[in-house]
Amino acid sequence: MADSKKMVDQITSMNTDFAQWYTDVVKKAELVDYSGVKGCMVIRPYGYAIWENIRGILDAEFKKLGHENVYMPLFIPESLLKKEADHVAGFAPECAVVTVGGQQQLTERLFVRPTSETLFCEHYKNIIHSYRDLPKLYNQWCNVVRWEKTTRPFLRTSEFLWQEGHTMHETAEEARAETLRMLDVYTDFYEKSLALPVVRGRKTEKEKFAGAEETYTVEPMMHNGFALQGGTSHYFGDGFARAFGITFTGRDNSVRYPFQTSWGVSTRIIGAIIMSHGDDNGLVLPPAVAPIQVVIIPVAQHKPGVLEAASAVAAEIGKRFRVKLDDSEQSGGWKFAQYEMKGVPLRLEIGPRDIENGSCVLVSRVTREKRQVPLEGIADSVAAALDGVHDELYKRASDNLAARTSDALDYAQFLDVAERRSGFIRAMWCGDAECEDKIKNDTGGVKSRCIPFEEERLSDVCVCCGRPAKHMVVWGRQY
Amino acid sequence: MADSKKMVDQITSMNTDFAQWYTDVVKKAELVDYSGVKGCMVIRPYGYAIWENIRGILDAEFKKLGHENVYMPLFIPESLLKKEADHVAGFAPECAVVTVGGQQQLTERLFVRPTSETLFCEHYKNIIHSYRDLPKLYNQWCNVVRWEKTTRPFLRTSEFLWQEGHTMHETAEEARAETLRMLDVYTDFYEKSLALPVVRGRKTEKEKFAGAEETYTVEPMMHNGFALQGGTSHYFGDGFARAFGITFTGRDNSVRYPFQTSWGVSTRIIGAIIMSHGDDNGLVLPPAVAPIQVVIIPVAQHKPGVLEAASAVAAEIGKRFRVKLDDSEQSGGWKFAQYEMKGVPLRLEIGPRDIENGSCVLVSRVTREKRQVPLEGIADSVAAALDGVHDELYKRASDNLAARTSDALDYAQFLDVAERRSGFIRAMWCGDAECEDKIKNDTGGVKSRCIPFEEERLSDVCVCCGRPAKHMVVWGRQY
Repeated sequence: MADSKKMVDQITSMNTDFAQWYTDVVKKAELVDYSGVKGCMVIRPYGYAIWENIRGILDAEFKKLGHENVYMPLFIPESLLKKEADHVAGFAPECAVVTVGGQQQLTERLFVRPTSETLFCEHYKNIIHSYRDLPKLYNQWCNVVRWEKTTRPFLRTSEFLWQEGHTMHETAEEARAETLRMLDVYTDFYEKSLALPVVRGRKTEKEKFAGAEETYTVEPMMHNGFALQGGTSHYFGDGFARAFGITFTGRDNSVRYPFQTSWGVSTRIIGAIIMSHGDDNGLVLPPAVAPIQVVIIPVAQHKPGVLEAASAVAAEIGKRFRVKLDDSEQSGGWKFAQYEMKGVPLRLEIGPRDIENGSCVLVSRVTREKRQVPLEGIADSVAAALDGVHDELYKRASDNLAARTSDALDYAQFLDVAERRSGFIRAMWCGDAECEDKIKNDTGGVKSRCIPFEEERLSDVCVCCGRPAKHMVVWGRQY
Repeated sequence: MADSKKMVDQITSMNTDFAQWYTDVVKKAELVDYSGVKGCMVIRPYGYAIWENIRGILDAEFKKLGHENVYMPLFIPESLLKKEADHVAGFAPECAVVTVGGQQQLTERLFVRPTSETLFCEHYKNIIHSYRDLPKLYNQWCNVVRWEKTTRPFLRTSEFLWQEGHTMHETAEEARAETLRMLDVYTDFYEKSLALPVVRGRKTEKEKFAGAEETYTVEPMMHNGFALQGGTSHYFGDGFARAFGITFTGRDNSVRYPFQTSWGVSTRIIGAIIMSHGDDNGLVLPPAVAPIQVVIIPVAQHKPGVLEAASAVAAEIGKRFRVKLDDSEQSGGWKFAQYEMKGVPLRLEIGPRDIENGSCVLVSRVTREKRQVPLEGIADSVAAALDGVHDELYKRASDNLAARTSDALDYAQFLDVAERRSGFIRAMWCGDAECEDKIKNDTGGVKSRCIPFEEERLSDVCVCCGRPAKHMVVWGRQY
């Protein structure tokens, strides 16, 4: 027990040092371990179980919409990566490169995939010949590598896990619709499964994906006001198709290029969950992705009937929820702290007095509110309480997003807000990348998040240069 | 339609050229595509769906037994790989090596994982301190790379997908029990999900895993009599624990080394399914892992009521099985050939006359037997028919295994059998690797598969050298 007790040591307070708080939580909630491999993390069972739940929900959504999973090679030959000029320029600098295989120097260098557009294109060239072969709606779940100098678990690692959808369509309209449809899937997932509101919009030219015509993004706000690029969806037009020579015979018998999209989310999502919902007692997990949704803690478990009653409740609600009954010899206080640290959304306490009353106690991880509920119909009470946890998380995140979003009408105001508090700034923009660069430099890191779908005309001129404004942009610091 | 018709082109007959038959099937059943990446394959939706089903079944079994999934880094620093001498000697020569990252020459070479014992050990060193931390029952689903000169889809590729279980135990007995328990899980999976009987046993010293004390194997026989190493389970003793300095405080407060196992199966399983169950009409899939378990083909689908009836049946049996209704404009003959090629275990035909009779027709992919069954209770009839397909596949594979297993009592007989027919040879062995080498050389490739759990004493002397026999060995050629 002495060993285990160390696990409930205090973690650094969020307000004292947010970065250290994050590091403490990922370690003490046993989500990751650092590895001896530079920039790579070990995802421990509890962290991986969150990813499995994320994957399960998204995969089912993708399949409902007709997407099919495939698996492409890990390696991209240098010549293949080079086929699309913007793409190679964007990604080659951050690649890990295999130069030796089977003890032989390779004649062509192999890039460990940082993303797989080029591999999908090579395959699509083989299998797309007629309009009847379209659309192709493929997705893959895999690992990718992008070399990083400074890393942080989940948020920025040299290797990470993700899904990448790659689709091919007969017309530009269809491909554009797919791009936005998948952004909707991500939005729904953030809101309904992760209890996180997002800002949605289009990336500026400067921030878009290497090789894409348009990049769309969903961006939740972290507790400290930073943004996190939560998921992106790209419209490629027929650029890659032309570069790779992918053609099909259209309905009118003419030879055409198909139109392409790609879209992805990664294990960064877990970083977003931690940073937006967590508190000074540790992790707080949205019920939909929590590995344990309800932990049952028997009170005075040595007394007759307690463990039996706890087991009966576990069996009952275990039919509908992911439940853990902790009947170990640890103290109640240790258990409470332990499962709070692990962010279990709901605690169910049951002791001799509860059993007498035919009831038990439900405690929300978010509000820490205790509520006595009858054992009769307990599964429905648990369902309602979990919904309550979700709703409260969503409300708090929405409040945070609203409280930390400011408008800036002129540059002095912009710089003032950027300096005073962390959050999103809504401001008009001329459309010029020079203003993005200037803002980033002047603020030490505030970047355009996106041109939101819901734009307002806050003023007629760019907040930075004073020239005529083209768009409203949401600005913010990012992880 | 002209394009699609090409898909039912004849495939090479098994008996004419087994290797070409295999290649034709994996291409025409749309399991894989060749990629421009040497030795790596594209796993297409239909092939990947088989893998998803395999993974689903095994993952549930692992979890039932208390195993947890984790994710370890893709890369192994050279110094880490070198910590266990036998292991590095066995694997380093077949590794892909990253020497450049982020456009910089790396100071230490990174090996793309060929297997992850070393990474698990590094992590276990961090998290195992007390006997209370044991056992650790971890598994991961991932990609691994082993450089191959000659490759064949699923059977031998430079990159493949697999699961690797890595467990740590307090005692040698527990670790040995885990090693054999997981071999039992594989055996059950082969028999009950893949309809494949296996020969089970221990690998000889020469054939065991690099760094293991004991390697156990399950080996199904392919249609042509070749063996395939279907899954292995390794007992490591405390060798890696000592090499990596993993210790724990035992119940008696002494410092001890834990005992370790690892076990894995890979996408080679799909090769085994193809090669053991397939026939001259294409793939034949065991129902448990078939992406489509029942294909419904409406007959005379333009006639009133046919599509409605077919849809009603699809909805009914779709609740219990993976069902596809093909109401495309293709001809019935094309559809029959297409789904036979894809190995769908059961075809359900329904036309105007069937509807009048309140019945439909079930056709087994294996026996091609047609049976009229009532629409009333159709889901139960389908369940029985799928069981029938499984049983028939298992019986045929068992018959093949029996028919192609011979005993050899002396070396002349051994060489004669090895030359005359492909299959397993049971023969006594002195325990010396020299005899294994000699047999391999003299036969052009016959190797020891394993020392089977059910040994018989066929004679007192080694079939090769005539010295006293230690074990019966099952010998065979392999993929």
